[in-house]
Amino acid sequence: MKVIRTVAELVAAIRTYKVEQPSSSIGFVPTMGYLHQGHASLLERSRQENDLSVLSIFVNPIQFGPNEDLDRYPRDEERDLATAERAGVDIAFLPTVEEMYPTTTKTKVAVSELTSLLCGASRPGHFDGVTTVVSKLFHMVKPTRAYFGMKDAQQVAVLTQMVADLNMDVEIVPCPIVREADGLALSSRNVYLSPEQRKQALMLSQSLLQAVGKLEEDVLAVEQVKAGIIERISQAPLADIEYVEVISFPSLERLSEDTLLPAQDADTLIALAVRFGSTRLIDNIRITKKKGESFPCSVK
Amino acid sequence: MKVIRTVAELVAAIRTYKVEQPSSSIGFVPTMGYLHQGHASLLERSRQENDLSVLSIFVNPIQFGPNEDLDRYPRDEERDLATAERAGVDIAFLPTVEEMYPTTTKTKVAVSELTSLLCGASRPGHFDGVTTVVSKLFHMVKPTRAYFGMKDAQQVAVLTQMVADLNMDVEIVPCPIVREADGLALSSRNVYLSPEQRKQALMLSQSLLQAVGKLEEDVLAVEQVKAGIIERISQAPLADIEYVEVISFPSLERLSEDTLLPAQDADTLIALAVRFGSTRLIDNIRITKKKGESFPCSVK
Repeated sequence: MKVIRTVAELVAAIRTYKVEQPSSSIGFVPTMGYLHQGHASLLERSRQENDLSVLSIFVNPIQFGPNEDLDRYPRDEERDLATAERAGVDIAFLPTVEEMYPTTTKTKVAVSELTSLLCGASRPGHFDGVTTVVSKLFHMVKPTRAYFGMKDAQQVAVLTQMVADLNMDVEIVPCPIVREADGLALSSRNVYLSPEQRKQALMLSQSLLQAVGKLEEDVLAVEQVKAGIIERISQAPLADIEYVEVISFPSLERLSEDTLLPAQDADTLIALAVRFGSTRLIDNIRITKKKGESFPCSVK
Repeated sequence: MKVIRTVAELVAAIRTYKVEQPSSSIGFVPTMGYLHQGHASLLERSRQENDLSVLSIFVNPIQFGPNEDLDRYPRDEERDLATAERAGVDIAFLPTVEEMYPTTTKTKVAVSELTSLLCGASRPGHFDGVTTVVSKLFHMVKPTRAYFGMKDAQQVAVLTQMVADLNMDVEIVPCPIVREADGLALSSRNVYLSPEQRKQALMLSQSLLQAVGKLEEDVLAVEQVKAGIIERISQAPLADIEYVEVISFPSLERLSEDTLLPAQDADTLIALAVRFGSTRLIDNIRITKKKGESFPCSVK
């Protein structure tokens, strides 16, 4: 595995590879590091599906708001590089902030509409930071496929829109959420949780599974599904609900409160964000509408 | 010369070329058609400096304001294709609006600061339209070099900033303004001018040359240079001045009124926009600061 820390070296390495192996595919997993099994699953898939596998680790300052956790975002480069090596990464790119932003960027890539709700509503500018840095990384790595976890379902939808709108020659591959044995979605931010918060954070996945369970037995309106989830999470005294939303996926349009679920015409996402103290957790479940299945729900 | 009208066909052609000729260079000239000698000079340079030369002709609706000349923008596909053929173009890409924007784009590429003055001030959203469509075209064509005329000096500066900020792997090549024998800068919009307007439009280049002539003899303040240009153009009764500005290039920062020219520390652009009836013309002259030259002015 080659560890690269400068943009110039990365661009040169990709250029050489493309000249020497013009028919080969490049898989890319952009991350903010502190890699967990969710990231490892993306890296393994990138390895399996491509000739060259590239990982980037960069805590991108422009996707953090002024009162967010940029300064305390967890880092462990040594462990990350070991994880990457095990997952068969060929190039690990670990730039400094100065490498990525030698001057303050005057150029932004921004996706409208899809970014106005869910995490976009509570984190203004967050997705502009994501689409801008991912554009930069795509231009450096020139990947055939890029892998993103469905825990950040809105990020997947926004990047899919960006790639289509800007004719970027890359396939966005959404990958299933990886969970702890007890159901908690893996996140680098889980490390912030106190033991008691960690225990109560289970309510996130449990409330989603409960909603799916009810939908297996009954047709329910959006407002009933949301009320059930809010009621369940409210049983955790340390949980502070930011949003519970039911939206179409990947178009991210809010379903009206009286829409009956499971919806017949599109995939539906039940998504939530909950704060425990200063730690913000998100989770979601996608209800897929597939023909011929008795119940179109995918617990991924 | 291959004429391509769909995005899919263009992307496939470039992909095949890149696999078969991985070390070859691609030159690209994006235009809105109605090609004149200025465009031809870009095409010839693209031909000379690259293995494959690509022209695009697309009147991009999202860079026109609601009261601008989108609907009457001049078109002559047959003549354009003959010009392209003569200039050694390998691929001419002529997409429809539906090909470029199958749905309304939710994604915008926007450059701040550099777009807040000059044409950006009077044409809100114009440069966002330019940077967005050029991003799309760059992602399709994957050029090594892209050629732009210095008549649109602000466009050159904005695109250079975009490419640097987003790490796009393409070189923006600014090319000299091509002028009629009498000095009028070539523009597809010159066709709109009545004979009398055409005559008076000469004041644009003459006022710039007069300013340069004075600067060859004297050190003058920005306000004196601007006043001289405004006075000269005001002699044309049909001319309606939109702006006359003296700015740094390519950083596009306004110089204070008392700055003495020629400036010692950076290239300077004297830029102007003037309306004749509903026709808007622009012109500029760049004063380069080069060591060892007696007078650092380039009449390009």
